[in-house]
Amino acid sequence: MEGILIIISGFSGAGKGTIVKHLLEDEQYALSISATTRKPRAGEYEGQHYYFIDETEFKTMIKHDELIEYASYVGNYYGTPKNYVLEQLAEGLDVILEIEMQGALQVKKQFPDALLVFITAPTAYEIKERLIKRGTESLELITKRLEKSLTEINAIDDYDYILVNDGLEETVTHLHGIIDSEHERVKRNKDLKDRLKKEFIELLKGE
Amino acid sequence: MEGILIIISGFSGAGKGTIVKHLLEDEQYALSISATTRKPRAGEYEGQHYYFIDETEFKTMIKHDELIEYASYVGNYYGTPKNYVLEQLAEGLDVILEIEMQGALQVKKQFPDALLVFITAPTAYEIKERLIKRGTESLELITKRLEKSLTEINAIDDYDYILVNDGLEETVTHLHGIIDSEHERVKRNKDLKDRLKKEFIELLKGE
Repeated sequence: MEGILIIISGFSGAGKGTIVKHLLEDEQYALSISATTRKPRAGEYEGQHYYFIDETEFKTMIKHDELIEYASYVGNYYGTPKNYVLEQLAEGLDVILEIEMQGALQVKKQFPDALLVFITAPTAYEIKERLIKRGTESLELITKRLEKSLTEINAIDDYDYILVNDGLEETVTHLHGIIDSEHERVKRNKDLKDRLKKEFIELLKGE
Repeated sequence: MEGILIIISGFSGAGKGTIVKHLLEDEQYALSISATTRKPRAGEYEGQHYYFIDETEFKTMIKHDELIEYASYVGNYYGTPKNYVLEQLAEGLDVILEIEMQGALQVKKQFPDALLVFITAPTAYEIKERLIKRGTESLELITKRLEKSLTEINAIDDYDYILVNDGLEETVTHLHGIIDSEHERVKRNKDLKDRLKKEFIELLKGE
């Protein structure tokens, strides 16, 4: 059976990075690896953390429709190569894509069977607290993140599931359960239906 | 949170009755109780196994749109009273409705958020074997059941999930997982989204 393309987004401060990291401990999943024009940092390896390419190559990939989605950020391009994702799905692995809402909705258009999961903290107050506790951002930047979260709320309707992160382990188990259940969707099991049909026809011929 | 109306159908011989019986051991579920014009058998109690009513009452219920679905079988009427289902859902219980495909699709029209699960054995050959092993039906009747199964196959597309019963315990766990996951659907969590929105607005006012 083909794998499912799973897109995970969420509010800043909802903890989605940690959740994805723990989810990936299961062998059923492959993390999509992004291509980027950014230079590798110490400890980053080609094909493991990123595919490191130059701007000309990146633009060629865009032109040849080889990226599922892409964006530029602080002067560098980041994108999701289509080939890798298609290969992993064909091998039956569920591919995890941790991307922003805008990219997520781009992907959904090309992969209508993608599974979109949105992760939130239990309350907006907790989101703010978590951002403050990180201690890496000014209050001004945190306010900007909260404003962005507010603008994103209505587009959550385009997601399939909304998952409240009220504890890492519980949430990972929940997410794992959602993905497992999605494998039983009728729309993902056309082969099963076709096989059963053939079998019934064969059985009734024998009568 | 409101409960989910869960409709369970499946091929004759797929084992859905046993699965539902085991699922109901969990307190999160309520089994919908049918109304019938059939006389109570020994050990059957009013409001536990059925609501026993007469034909005039049954026809009044039809007329007043008090049944979600109904059918007549061997001279008696059977139907699903709407009130009981609505009450249980409002109390946050998931209501299980084990009904035939035709009734299921009737219910789906009235309750678009109902969850439809179709249960099958792993192969058509196993379905036939199970029907034979029951030993209660003639080969002619079994053939009729298989023919009916074949006609039902295409309508499985109107179901949300197809669950292969390849072991009672595993299948019940699976079904339980599907229902749990469904509670995290965005469409079933409008309240959560509205609450978060309010909270973000309030937070940003305070800045």
